[in-house]
Amino acid sequence: MSQGSQHFHLNAFLMGVGHHEAAWRHPRTEAHRVLDVKHFQELGRIAERGKLDSVFFADTLAIGPRLEHNTQAIFEPVTLLSAIAVATEHVGLIATASTSYGDPYSLARKFTSLDHISGGRAGWNIVTSAGADEAANFGVDGIPAHSGRYERAAEFVDVALALWDSWEDDAVVLDPDTGLFADPAKVHTIDHDGPRFQVKGPLNSPRSAQGRPLLVQAGSSESGKEFAARHAEAVFTAQRTLAQGQEFYRDLKAGVVKYGRNAGDLKVLPGIVPFIADTQEEAEALERSFTDLISPAYSLRQLSTMLGVDLTEHSLDAPLPPLPPLNEIQGNKSRYQLVKDLAEDGSLTVRQLIGLLGGGRGHRTFAGTPEQVADELQIWFEQGAADGFNIMPPYLPGGLDDFVDQVVPILQDRGLFRTEYTSTTLRGHYGLGEVGNRFAPGDALGGAIGEASA
Amino acid sequence: MSQGSQHFHLNAFLMGVGHHEAAWRHPRTEAHRVLDVKHFQELGRIAERGKLDSVFFADTLAIGPRLEHNTQAIFEPVTLLSAIAVATEHVGLIATASTSYGDPYSLARKFTSLDHISGGRAGWNIVTSAGADEAANFGVDGIPAHSGRYERAAEFVDVALALWDSWEDDAVVLDPDTGLFADPAKVHTIDHDGPRFQVKGPLNSPRSAQGRPLLVQAGSSESGKEFAARHAEAVFTAQRTLAQGQEFYRDLKAGVVKYGRNAGDLKVLPGIVPFIADTQEEAEALERSFTDLISPAYSLRQLSTMLGVDLTEHSLDAPLPPLPPLNEIQGNKSRYQLVKDLAEDGSLTVRQLIGLLGGGRGHRTFAGTPEQVADELQIWFEQGAADGFNIMPPYLPGGLDDFVDQVVPILQDRGLFRTEYTSTTLRGHYGLGEVGNRFAPGDALGGAIGEASA
Repeated sequence: MSQGSQHFHLNAFLMGVGHHEAAWRHPRTEAHRVLDVKHFQELGRIAERGKLDSVFFADTLAIGPRLEHNTQAIFEPVTLLSAIAVATEHVGLIATASTSYGDPYSLARKFTSLDHISGGRAGWNIVTSAGADEAANFGVDGIPAHSGRYERAAEFVDVALALWDSWEDDAVVLDPDTGLFADPAKVHTIDHDGPRFQVKGPLNSPRSAQGRPLLVQAGSSESGKEFAARHAEAVFTAQRTLAQGQEFYRDLKAGVVKYGRNAGDLKVLPGIVPFIADTQEEAEALERSFTDLISPAYSLRQLSTMLGVDLTEHSLDAPLPPLPPLNEIQGNKSRYQLVKDLAEDGSLTVRQLIGLLGGGRGHRTFAGTPEQVADELQIWFEQGAADGFNIMPPYLPGGLDDFVDQVVPILQDRGLFRTEYTSTTLRGHYGLGEVGNRFAPGDALGGAIGEASA
Repeated sequence: MSQGSQHFHLNAFLMGVGHHEAAWRHPRTEAHRVLDVKHFQELGRIAERGKLDSVFFADTLAIGPRLEHNTQAIFEPVTLLSAIAVATEHVGLIATASTSYGDPYSLARKFTSLDHISGGRAGWNIVTSAGADEAANFGVDGIPAHSGRYERAAEFVDVALALWDSWEDDAVVLDPDTGLFADPAKVHTIDHDGPRFQVKGPLNSPRSAQGRPLLVQAGSSESGKEFAARHAEAVFTAQRTLAQGQEFYRDLKAGVVKYGRNAGDLKVLPGIVPFIADTQEEAEALERSFTDLISPAYSLRQLSTMLGVDLTEHSLDAPLPPLPPLNEIQGNKSRYQLVKDLAEDGSLTVRQLIGLLGGGRGHRTFAGTPEQVADELQIWFEQGAADGFNIMPPYLPGGLDDFVDQVVPILQDRGLFRTEYTSTTLRGHYGLGEVGNRFAPGDALGGAIGEASA
């Protein structure tokens, strides 16, 4: 069993009308709801009905190869999560935001706002934006180099953490008699003067209920894992086999310890795309009904982007051509490696590969009964591959309904998952302690994550 | 009577627990609600009960001189307005955002998200962030020069407008049979290559209900007025006398016409801070009860920032010292001129000046009965000084309740203000037509506001 709790954690990774790239074409979805905020509020409420730890929205800063054949990430995630925050009471709210574009002051403010609005349920999935198409929307030519992205990310996070500490917990006094709104001795400049950012501070918002958002990370390259080991409190990861999941889990936890943190301070959450039905045969048929709707033209473009090789003229029924070595990839290195392994291990045709990837872009797809899904999660949890799971419903809202109504009760009966929320904050749901504040006198936790910037 | 409609327009400018700088100390407010999203949702619903056109939140990107003695703009405005959007159905939602920091791609995305979430009720108050304290949070030394800020603003807005056009109205197809999500022929790169921004596009979100947010502006310097004449559809302005209001109105409308627009395409909304009570005496006593709570130390610092002169050691009972000439001011030039005129015309002591400014930082304060407030608004509207008003309640929510419940019905009885919403969008409330799209074939409106960027 994994360290820490006897319970595991569940995040719902929500994407449009579902993770399966053809979800919007399937009769189980109402595709137009991808534009409707009420759809997303409903998803938040379903997740809360299942007592899930959190919901999560990914994001990219360009339309990418998805334009013609797939629905878009239409909403800026924090803006969307604010609307979900006020429609829910407990569930955590995790938004992706990039460190490669934008600036730490505005990002820190935005997440603090979401944390205030939600009463302490905000989380930040830190991404470094690998896409050349994203770069071109921000005045950068080509794909920004992998190493430079992570150097910038490190400084960006350092500044944001300092800003989140810039108001002590009790800085707001609100004393009408003395006329004192805030105690200036408890609000601090951060005076950051680094190679990429110069930020005086303090933040223009008092400290929020959690102190700062939960820090989440999802890149599994070596730089990504190093970054996660230092900063992240939850990691979303694509792992296709139990053995790979165990290796990743061990590796990442060792890194966490290397940075002087406890192994339990970071939760590892592999992704799973569950197709759920009353029998295994029905579940597999359900999956096939989605796979049959995949557009090969779209998938070839997506795969080309993922692998850095133009496959758009490549035969669907031939195996993949030779792929460039990992060190030439400037984009998502871990996803590249995963697809390369799949293709080389199985001698799959491009068509077969596309079907395999269609459900979750490289994440593990699993078709089975509610019991079988629960078994699978239990095995990964008990055999040291997961502290919880990133549930990626292939279609929405039905795929989330089915997980919450059919799988969660089994997990609860087995004592693997909470039956009621016992915390009001996202950090609390994940079993993490309160964050310290580098500026609070005698605060032993101060500066524990990310140094104060001189 | 002003051009256009026989109705005028009303925006509620909402700030914390009220515009009066001592509002949070007054028994009529509950100061702790400044941190509570439900407070702001309630304000949105009160405005909607009064059939107001919109609510508006200002913003600055630093804590400024407000820290000790005044409540903060705690929430990032778009994040806050998203939470208000889902608690209301009709009222427009205007957020301040800066063109001096951040980038047009992220800003365009954020406002499009709010417009999607609200069903076409988003507005952008365009500011150029004059503060040195703001600059220091974004790696800029000193106050950015006035002219450079407006040059950047012009290019910033051009890029944002192009991005908002990058999806044609009917680009989203959502055809499950053909597998076509969006028609690529109707989604356009913008290929902007300017001195400050290089942005390829398209935006990563389909066109929203209004096409783009309503464009609002509030700077009244010469550069500000020029900018407003070219771009703005509503202008918030501080005008203390009818004659000044009339001059500003004529001047700005002439500028609008000079840019080939109709005078009615821009609505001029002077601010007013109304103290409302059953008798004039009670209203004046109410105002005094707020003024008595002003902290001189806080006000001196605020005035020092506004005037670019250190007054913190200056006697409260002496007149202002000589002020620098307007052309040396890099900050808010129009507010500087307004205070300079006030101080020089009236030979006021600093203490008297502080009392006069305490209600609305230079905006007109008016204490009277509901009838008197309605009279005042009617005079300004009928005598060519206003297309509507920026209502700045001195305390919240009570000050907004009183305006909506006591003044609005009088305006409605007089036929000056709507009794029901007749539009679903913010543009519709303000009587503005649909926006064009430079990329739509044969669209006569295409490119009418802001040229396409080559």
